[in-house]
Amino acid sequence: MKKTSIFLAIFLFLIVFVACSPNMDSNNTSNKTDPLPSWNTGATKSAIIDYVNDVTNSKSKDFIPVSDRIATFDNDGNLWSEQPAYFQLFFAIDRLKQLAPEHPEWRTEQPFKAVLENDMDELAKQGEHGLIELIMATHSGNSEEEFRADVIDWINSAKHPTKKVGFDKLVYQPMLELLHYLRANDFKTYVVSGGGVDFMRAFVCEIYGIPAEQIIGSRIKTRFDYNNGDCRIIRLPELEFIDDKDGKPLAIQKIIGKKPVFASGNSDGDLQMMQWTASNEHKSFMLYLHHTDAKREWAYDRESHIGRLDKGLDEANEKGWAVIDMKKDWKVIYPFQITKK
Amino acid sequence: MKKTSIFLAIFLFLIVFVACSPNMDSNNTSNKTDPLPSWNTGATKSAIIDYVNDVTNSKSKDFIPVSDRIATFDNDGNLWSEQPAYFQLFFAIDRLKQLAPEHPEWRTEQPFKAVLENDMDELAKQGEHGLIELIMATHSGNSEEEFRADVIDWINSAKHPTKKVGFDKLVYQPMLELLHYLRANDFKTYVVSGGGVDFMRAFVCEIYGIPAEQIIGSRIKTRFDYNNGDCRIIRLPELEFIDDKDGKPLAIQKIIGKKPVFASGNSDGDLQMMQWTASNEHKSFMLYLHHTDAKREWAYDRESHIGRLDKGLDEANEKGWAVIDMKKDWKVIYPFQITKK
Repeated sequence: MKKTSIFLAIFLFLIVFVACSPNMDSNNTSNKTDPLPSWNTGATKSAIIDYVNDVTNSKSKDFIPVSDRIATFDNDGNLWSEQPAYFQLFFAIDRLKQLAPEHPEWRTEQPFKAVLENDMDELAKQGEHGLIELIMATHSGNSEEEFRADVIDWINSAKHPTKKVGFDKLVYQPMLELLHYLRANDFKTYVVSGGGVDFMRAFVCEIYGIPAEQIIGSRIKTRFDYNNGDCRIIRLPELEFIDDKDGKPLAIQKIIGKKPVFASGNSDGDLQMMQWTASNEHKSFMLYLHHTDAKREWAYDRESHIGRLDKGLDEANEKGWAVIDMKKDWKVIYPFQITKK
Repeated sequence: MKKTSIFLAIFLFLIVFVACSPNMDSNNTSNKTDPLPSWNTGATKSAIIDYVNDVTNSKSKDFIPVSDRIATFDNDGNLWSEQPAYFQLFFAIDRLKQLAPEHPEWRTEQPFKAVLENDMDELAKQGEHGLIELIMATHSGNSEEEFRADVIDWINSAKHPTKKVGFDKLVYQPMLELLHYLRANDFKTYVVSGGGVDFMRAFVCEIYGIPAEQIIGSRIKTRFDYNNGDCRIIRLPELEFIDDKDGKPLAIQKIIGKKPVFASGNSDGDLQMMQWTASNEHKSFMLYLHHTDAKREWAYDRESHIGRLDKGLDEANEKGWAVIDMKKDWKVIYPFQITKK
């Protein structure tokens, strides 16, 4: 694997969640006749609704049988925010500090020293190797159950550095509505993310209404431990699979075994998933989220180190794929902005 | 990986399907009041029905929520026969012969020479290396779609060497009924097999009533190919994952992310899946199929090279897991035996 891909991959491995109150899916339609009430009227919203109406109409030439209605969603920057860094990195940093008392050697060893001294410039200087070290030190060595409990503890207490709310409050309300709308039309919704699959599964299922078996992500290696009836799956300090770029269609084929008809993403890391979906014999829908709202969220695209959208934006424009202009297309960004109304 | 594990793994990689008429699931209850009409009355059948009644009863202390009702089934020798060799090996042999005209060099190179000369003793002498060569030559080099079409062509024409029926006729009628019965009680049924996932997906979905995304198996590596809008996933001549022994609980955790409550298998290769299931906090059910019927199917267990059941049988007896005695517990073996009635 090239150095640059590893670097991007590690960043992508550091994903997050975003969230809101439970049962969002069943309560998110303030307007009973509008399936996407947090979306402004416009070309993007119309295109989504027209597509769903068309492919679910049994009299349409574009009708898609229920078993083929596979919809795949990237997570970071697509279902929740991803700035100023993938939220999974905040988990790694907090976890390292929590484990530090058992590791006095970290006070003098990089990249741990940089993290413990809150020296983010130094951490950045440690590059991909430093990030891998940080991830391995904080995401392995325990069982799947223990890791899950650690993530849940963290999500229940950590706050975003500038938004000052729990990371799980930073999910996108319009995307929750879109997930719900697709499921109401018998689409099977999947997360297909560069983030860690076990990190996500610990808390996103309820938020997104997506069960564990429909969450696909990056993984580290694991080992099955059996000791007289006591079974554990132990997390090992080695990357197994990076679910980004080419990895996305490959993972979709391996795990789902069907080509999606609907794909939603926000970066060049999602481009191959879009291309794969666009090649479906069924009528398909490709949806890019363009971060254009510096005031309510963040504005970034071609030059960003996180969630870069460059080639993907060109290809979307060229091929006529739908592009969400966040500033223009979304009435609200986060669920807590709705409850304030 | 140890040589012996590779050898076993390759054998397991050579799996098969077995089958019967479409829509079996909806037509398999000759007795409306009996969910398992092809099972003889006895301890095994009663244990299955008692378990399902208990864990689906919302007033029971053992009640299991629908989202946790995960049932995993081994395939070869468990949902269909596996003798005298995993049926996927017959596909590999037939495919090699089909490809031979394009490969004159195979006439003098092993293991290809042995296969082309129908010299199974010589093929056996080629050992694990020969088997890997045979699998790689016949299962890679094309796209997922092309491979799928090849498997479908084969299954529609090939016949079992001694049973003289299509391999897809050699599925177990009692297991089709069990799959249907579990799904009728809101269990989500999965295949978790050492066989090749793409080989199975090509034809077992309709037979078992299990969608592609609930088929887990062994895999070779793949590559995403993009050429101006033409997308293909190309199959590469390298093993990626062997879904056997420890691999089964690991794959279940990676792909499903939930521990099964019901596990069904027939060999020592399923033992770790059984142990993992037995460690569920929910009440769980472990079911071994013991091949005891030399007349109607095959009889083999502790000494068999294919589908060996030795440690698993001891552990089942010790732990009180259910063991199907095929000769005693099953009224019929294959669906075509029912239609003859």
